[in-house]
Amino acid sequence: MNDFVNNIKPSVRAISAYHLNGKQYEVKLNQNENPYDLPKWLKDELLDEFCGFAWNRYPSFGNLRLIEKLSSHVQIEPNRILVGNGSNELLQTLMAVSLSAGKKLLLVAPTFLIYHQLGRVAEADICEIEFEEDWSFPVNKILSTLGQEQIELCIFCSPNSPTGATLKESDLIQILKRVKGLVLVDEAYHEFSKTSCLELQSDFKNLIITRTFSKAMGLAGLRIGYLIAHPALITEINKARLPYNLNIFSEFVALKLLDHYDLVNKNVEKILSEKERLTRELFELNNVTPLPSEANFFMIKTPTRAPELFDKLADKGVLVRDISKYHPRLKNHLRISIGTPEENENLINSLKTTLF
Amino acid sequence: MNDFVNNIKPSVRAISAYHLNGKQYEVKLNQNENPYDLPKWLKDELLDEFCGFAWNRYPSFGNLRLIEKLSSHVQIEPNRILVGNGSNELLQTLMAVSLSAGKKLLLVAPTFLIYHQLGRVAEADICEIEFEEDWSFPVNKILSTLGQEQIELCIFCSPNSPTGATLKESDLIQILKRVKGLVLVDEAYHEFSKTSCLELQSDFKNLIITRTFSKAMGLAGLRIGYLIAHPALITEINKARLPYNLNIFSEFVALKLLDHYDLVNKNVEKILSEKERLTRELFELNNVTPLPSEANFFMIKTPTRAPELFDKLADKGVLVRDISKYHPRLKNHLRISIGTPEENENLINSLKTTLF
Repeated sequence: MNDFVNNIKPSVRAISAYHLNGKQYEVKLNQNENPYDLPKWLKDELLDEFCGFAWNRYPSFGNLRLIEKLSSHVQIEPNRILVGNGSNELLQTLMAVSLSAGKKLLLVAPTFLIYHQLGRVAEADICEIEFEEDWSFPVNKILSTLGQEQIELCIFCSPNSPTGATLKESDLIQILKRVKGLVLVDEAYHEFSKTSCLELQSDFKNLIITRTFSKAMGLAGLRIGYLIAHPALITEINKARLPYNLNIFSEFVALKLLDHYDLVNKNVEKILSEKERLTRELFELNNVTPLPSEANFFMIKTPTRAPELFDKLADKGVLVRDISKYHPRLKNHLRISIGTPEENENLINSLKTTLF
Repeated sequence: MNDFVNNIKPSVRAISAYHLNGKQYEVKLNQNENPYDLPKWLKDELLDEFCGFAWNRYPSFGNLRLIEKLSSHVQIEPNRILVGNGSNELLQTLMAVSLSAGKKLLLVAPTFLIYHQLGRVAEADICEIEFEEDWSFPVNKILSTLGQEQIELCIFCSPNSPTGATLKESDLIQILKRVKGLVLVDEAYHEFSKTSCLELQSDFKNLIITRTFSKAMGLAGLRIGYLIAHPALITEINKARLPYNLNIFSEFVALKLLDHYDLVNKNVEKILSEKERLTRELFELNNVTPLPSEANFFMIKTPTRAPELFDKLADKGVLVRDISKYHPRLKNHLRISIGTPEENENLINSLKTTLF
């Protein structure tokens, strides 16, 4: 009856849309956001200046100001940078220029769901390799797959969401030596792990990095990300990037935040110290085990059914992420973002009254 | 040497990036923007309220508030609407779900360059049909092509940029009766032509419409667009849409502007009345002919070389669009957006001193 829907590619019709419960909760620990908003003085200052901008005019072509600023912030040449509407958009653009029907995308599972979804839309063959038993990256299995298959694109989220481990530099080097295709390392959480593979780009020209302003940088609402790659790849990826993909407000706030980067550093330290405290306190609870993580979140394992625990916490106004259906090995797991001390306290108390 | 670039699809390597001169000019008539910014009282009011938002939190999932508001504004069901980071993003998403290597995309040439570029990225076969001699839509040639070829997606920009004509409803109906694939009508300029094919969606479920806040609605800097289609198509397109593709600021301003839509109507009337005056005055000049248009821009034809005229105007601080290389039939053409009365006066004076 709806035969007009047959004009949609079968690979798309076969998937389900990414979905997240949009309900509001008092304590929101489900999206790995930075719990600290910009200080009011900075918001006031920049809103005042932004009022004078011409909102009716398109953004400047190519976002050169933000690229220049990132260039000096990251200490790389501007022609190695693209900015976008969140790093997801740049990932989507990278897939658009490198994947098509039958090309192979290597992912490590479980990981950020969007990689898989966009790969399916691009009709790629997805090779999923499971994390090791201890959730470390399965380097030997990756190397063996790279020896057997022609892989066009590998994506590694490091630290990985939801599992929390980083890909070690020595392991990434082995992978880069073996691979013939492109390698994307999504460094969405790199400020928390204090790791980056940026320096490897000088030896490995097929290494691409994405980063975001949505996590440590605390601007999830404004959708800002950037991609770092060899200039020859930037040229190609840029052809599929939409002009004016970053709006003038988000670009302006990104510029201002880079001028006040000490705010980000302070928030990262607060979050890391809270992570340590929260992990320690959860270790003392029965019936729940926090797992190691190098990001601003961690998984907890529970002998009770994870969806039930999720619901009980939600009933108490604490929203965490139910990842129990993301992968068979996660059926007893929830993911928890580190919040403010008050939010974390609220979580601990809710867990205590729920579990005992 | 750069063999890592071979991982990029040949269809992408073969194209050139979309490019626009980013120089600043006193009079900017090159991007079909609304020359009127929001009034300061409205900016102040909304910036004040927006200061209290949590910028560190992701946008609400699915942009339901804006979709509800658009639903009542446009008078259609919310499940027929998707919102995005400019209508271009929704076009890109539509192509991602409907096109792949060898599938056919029908365009009318010359038109908005991005259609062609995104089609190439998707590896589609592009069937380009030329506008009629008088720049009207070549309906008979389109019908004949649809009879011979299996076309997956047709895109019509109505009114078309840069040529200015609309696709007549009776012609679109003929096309819709013949076509088996999807038909996208980009109504970016529909407020100026006061035409829309929205009502045809009840008879033709394969008809998709995109609209933008960047032209008549005067928010080009904030990148807001929406797509209207049958709910079954919305479900599919939504699978390739990135979550959180519209930032919280742009969504908020879009909501506020819809509350003050009289501002848009007033601007449209001012622009249309200026278009009439500007066209009339240009008709009186020698060596330049304004062509009919139903949008907020028109083409001028000049016997002098268009790039030279473009440069001379730019030297006087007036930036128009040099479209002379967009299509062989446009080699003597420039495109001019309607500005404020002062900007238009400036253009007329610059043309007078340049042409005589």
